[in-house]
Amino acid sequence: MSHSPLIKQLIDSLRCLPGVGAKSAQRMAYHLLERDRNGARRLSQVLLQSAEQVGHCKTCRILTEYEQCDICQSSRRDQQLLCVVETPSDVYAIEQSGSFKGRYFVLMGHLSPLDGIGPQELHLHELKQQVQHNNINEVILATNTTVEGEATAHYIVELLKPVINKISRIAHGVPLGGELEYIDGSTLGHAFNGRLEFK
Amino acid sequence: MSHSPLIKQLIDSLRCLPGVGAKSAQRMAYHLLERDRNGARRLSQVLLQSAEQVGHCKTCRILTEYEQCDICQSSRRDQQLLCVVETPSDVYAIEQSGSFKGRYFVLMGHLSPLDGIGPQELHLHELKQQVQHNNINEVILATNTTVEGEATAHYIVELLKPVINKISRIAHGVPLGGELEYIDGSTLGHAFNGRLEFK
Repeated sequence: MSHSPLIKQLIDSLRCLPGVGAKSAQRMAYHLLERDRNGARRLSQVLLQSAEQVGHCKTCRILTEYEQCDICQSSRRDQQLLCVVETPSDVYAIEQSGSFKGRYFVLMGHLSPLDGIGPQELHLHELKQQVQHNNINEVILATNTTVEGEATAHYIVELLKPVINKISRIAHGVPLGGELEYIDGSTLGHAFNGRLEFK
Repeated sequence: MSHSPLIKQLIDSLRCLPGVGAKSAQRMAYHLLERDRNGARRLSQVLLQSAEQVGHCKTCRILTEYEQCDICQSSRRDQQLLCVVETPSDVYAIEQSGSFKGRYFVLMGHLSPLDGIGPQELHLHELKQQVQHNNINEVILATNTTVEGEATAHYIVELLKPVINKISRIAHGVPLGGELEYIDGSTLGHAFNGRLEFK
């Protein structure tokens, strides 16, 4: 004996969520059916609405249901500073740190030729156009410090060199609170190469 | 800056799922929006359908979208054996073990006066009627071995004593592969009291 067809479908559908396996999906399905049908109805409605309405900000390409996102619309942001990141989550992480007050450009991924993700998919021509025409002073590359993130950063440097003077990369090194003993060799290498002189 | 209103709503709604906190909900929302809109649409549809259509089996009270569940409809099950469990998940666990071939009665909870869950909420009168009128030989109580599960089992014993001779409780003891060193005292107590003689 197994679950009834509809409950089985519900459990299967829940598995499209990242990190949800067979056991958790079953637990979620029973929780919703036994204790939170209103939550299930609300989730159903918001899921559909989001899937239909959420698109990309026309300027920075972050996910939003509006034409332009809050940050791009804001007059308080430094319009001459542009930070390039891989994902919306990176934007929220940087925003929470409060360390950047310019605008963003969200690649929504990184270069990955094997997966068919090239410059077109990351809309790098739009990035170049914005840098060319929007009077931007500095482009800060804040892609991840993974192999793909580094490759993407290098590609963007080559692409933007002809149209802008100042391109920078966020610093790599030992994280705050990090004990040297447990830091990997390449990070230590970066930390030594990028050392700052006391002045 | 925070998420756009609709994305914020989506993240909030996902938190109605058990075990999903702020970070996982955000990860799920972005995964669905960036990579699996069809999964989101399908989940939305199945959620709504389940919330509207899934009810209780009229005989054993398990969750199902039909009037009666597979097990209750099956002619292969021993109609004279009735196993009382707390939740549908318990039924699936027992079914997977293959150790029981009778029918079930699913309480959908346990007695918990503080939460307003009494005999009515567990439909214990229906259980009694079934035992009285359906020619049942033995009732096996397989509620959890928690305080509430034990209390519920005791209540059911008192309730059914007048109408049936054979009421049993599943055995408590050391689980297979369990090392005595790590088993708690009350379980060991049960294991000793319930010991079986070699014959």
